[in-house]
Amino acid sequence: MARILARDLKDHIGSPVSISGWLHKKRLLGGLTFINVRDRSGLTQVLIEDKDEVEKLRGMQLGTVLSVTGNVVAEERAPGGAEIHEGVVEVLTPVTYESPIEIDKAISHQAEHLDTLFEHRVVSLRNIREQAVFRIQAAVKEAVRTYLRSQEFVEFNSPKLLPGSTEGGAEVFKLDYFGKEATLAQSAQFYKQMMVGVFERAYEINPTYRAELSATTRHMTEFIHIDAEMGFVNFDELLNLLGELLHTVVESVYQSEATSLALWKSAKPLVPVKVPRLKLEDIHTMYEKATKQTVTDFKDLTPSEEKWVCEYAKKELGSDAVLVTHWPASEMKFYHRLDATDSRYTERADLLFCGVEIATGSMREHRYDVLVDQLVKKTGADITHPGFHYYLQAFKHGMPVHGGFGMGLERLTQKIISLANVKEASLFPRDINRLAP
Amino acid sequence: MARILARDLKDHIGSPVSISGWLHKKRLLGGLTFINVRDRSGLTQVLIEDKDEVEKLRGMQLGTVLSVTGNVVAEERAPGGAEIHEGVVEVLTPVTYESPIEIDKAISHQAEHLDTLFEHRVVSLRNIREQAVFRIQAAVKEAVRTYLRSQEFVEFNSPKLLPGSTEGGAEVFKLDYFGKEATLAQSAQFYKQMMVGVFERAYEINPTYRAELSATTRHMTEFIHIDAEMGFVNFDELLNLLGELLHTVVESVYQSEATSLALWKSAKPLVPVKVPRLKLEDIHTMYEKATKQTVTDFKDLTPSEEKWVCEYAKKELGSDAVLVTHWPASEMKFYHRLDATDSRYTERADLLFCGVEIATGSMREHRYDVLVDQLVKKTGADITHPGFHYYLQAFKHGMPVHGGFGMGLERLTQKIISLANVKEASLFPRDINRLAP
Repeated sequence: MARILARDLKDHIGSPVSISGWLHKKRLLGGLTFINVRDRSGLTQVLIEDKDEVEKLRGMQLGTVLSVTGNVVAEERAPGGAEIHEGVVEVLTPVTYESPIEIDKAISHQAEHLDTLFEHRVVSLRNIREQAVFRIQAAVKEAVRTYLRSQEFVEFNSPKLLPGSTEGGAEVFKLDYFGKEATLAQSAQFYKQMMVGVFERAYEINPTYRAELSATTRHMTEFIHIDAEMGFVNFDELLNLLGELLHTVVESVYQSEATSLALWKSAKPLVPVKVPRLKLEDIHTMYEKATKQTVTDFKDLTPSEEKWVCEYAKKELGSDAVLVTHWPASEMKFYHRLDATDSRYTERADLLFCGVEIATGSMREHRYDVLVDQLVKKTGADITHPGFHYYLQAFKHGMPVHGGFGMGLERLTQKIISLANVKEASLFPRDINRLAP
Repeated sequence: MARILARDLKDHIGSPVSISGWLHKKRLLGGLTFINVRDRSGLTQVLIEDKDEVEKLRGMQLGTVLSVTGNVVAEERAPGGAEIHEGVVEVLTPVTYESPIEIDKAISHQAEHLDTLFEHRVVSLRNIREQAVFRIQAAVKEAVRTYLRSQEFVEFNSPKLLPGSTEGGAEVFKLDYFGKEATLAQSAQFYKQMMVGVFERAYEINPTYRAELSATTRHMTEFIHIDAEMGFVNFDELLNLLGELLHTVVESVYQSEATSLALWKSAKPLVPVKVPRLKLEDIHTMYEKATKQTVTDFKDLTPSEEKWVCEYAKKELGSDAVLVTHWPASEMKFYHRLDATDSRYTERADLLFCGVEIATGSMREHRYDVLVDQLVKKTGADITHPGFHYYLQAFKHGMPVHGGFGMGLERLTQKIISLANVKEASLFPRDINRLAP
């Protein structure tokens, strides 16, 4: 008999069917044996009455792969409104090792249990609620691509093996490349700018590497970054696009992944098409006034300020997202552009979402001479180094006014689901303490 | 005046418009100055009559970023059937450096010119025909995703930083990971199999790393790999899916990228929904008979055999693709499954396309005990090593019959366009001699 999927069971009420999957749960109830079988579409409840059939399951642990044939009966209390009766079992892959995780129950995501969750990730992902995180993430990724494609961004792949570190800092992984030193890309910044000279609008979603020395709830050593860059736009247009991207992704994911989101009781965040904007200085002032805390660093936002301003925006502006503008010129990176109307600021904005920064966008300096000047003065870089030479080549041969943004896929997923630690939104997270599974 | 794109010019005949882009070509013709302006949608031809306007372009090299306003006039000989007359120029980013590549002419892809092409990649990609390669590649990637999604594969991201080399060989990049040794993933093999235990069907398209010691036309050190794996299928179903994927991708790309493919005079390959299958032994025999060459290695196909059998299949079987089956058991990898009906063979197939292998698919050993036995006997591996431990965990806790395949994105793109070297289909190729741009 041809296999059907769990989700199609209700279309076969009154008929015999065959399902295949993993033994997900097994229990005895008043002399009857109930099992749940998991396949890619969900769970099927099966009632096994026959003693010989029950016997086949003796000693079989969760995870055992099996086929069950039987008759479909309407049953309101079963997942999907139907279950299989008179189940006849065929064990396909017997499992005799006990599962290290109770995959049929909600797995704790409390900070002190995360290490266990990750250590047994290969098995814990078989839990339906854990799977949901990554079904949602796949939908987020697809929604980002769909939106960027609709705005005529061309997808590209930039190399992650680079001839040297260009953005500075100790946070770079180095490796031996046939006797030369190579580094792993800390960002796609230079390549996405080069691609503006080619496609005008370009994006990639790819792994990015940072040798983060501390294990925080916000950082990993390997993560997936959404990098987009566009030419012939001004700052206002760039921020509109970034806000609309978030709005569209949230709308799309809450539409397509309702079932998975429900498992996390995830309330739909408020993201208006036009995300509200606040100036960095104003946030500092409002924060001090509201919390009676003293701000010591006016050049950045502390995590508690990020949290506070998101709560403020939700309450007062009807948005779980805020664009923070007017960052001080003193903090600018060499490739940022100064605000032409007020040189105290750079044309940069951070996108905060549900309490944390998920993206940074900015306009870039597009004039070759000014860029070289900023690069040399700010970093002391050798512009003939291959890490800079080819990047600068794009500007030497003509770059338009342009800007772009980078957004962490895991952070975005994390905030949509309201997970406390970004690692919970990484399939196999990497940090200073964890390099496996 | 609001900017319009080159492709929309013909909708504005008789009206004044403004375009923005890069100076792509400049020529004098009978006292008139013609320029081509490139934007993300293509080229616009502009006629500049006024001397003051012509003067603005003096010394301006290709790549100069400019806006032009003028009146749209129907002109059959211009790209898109219209051009701008009485052009008024505004130079936005002047370029005074001469372009190292003539971007308005077809750039040579002859073997001896490839190094120049790559060295100036940042500029050479501004050539419309070069761009076409990567527009096609983006469409290939999207078509692969669309097909796999339609078959209920869930997209995932596996880590590329690994705790050790598991597939053996010297071709592994090693790096220092906070004092421990890490390696860069040579394949997603283990992770995609683990994901069968989670989603039943899963795929990723991500960078992969091999420290290839020789610079060939077939290999790079960093490339994009399509990895897909599915549970509860047999070999026949797996091969059907792999063939249908190729068929669907070719159909989709020749539909959506007709303009880009035309620039490469790329004839649509023949890929029937059901790709023909040939046995390895039969190919050897036919090849010897047809070419009078002697086959010395019966366990593999030489590049010339691959080429020959593709020509044979095109002529005799009406297909540019062939699935080569019946690979000898002696050559199997530890995770392959022996053919249950004939243990001389493994259930593996190589997919050849237009003369070269672009994918390998196989059924995997899914029984924990047999897999451990094959692993230890074939590789001598320490199964407690984190590189194996977590992989085996998936099997210990139940894996169904499953199989999958891996396909190189660049090779697939290369063969669709008929490029001679796989590096021509990599945006910024990496090999033993090249780590930049």
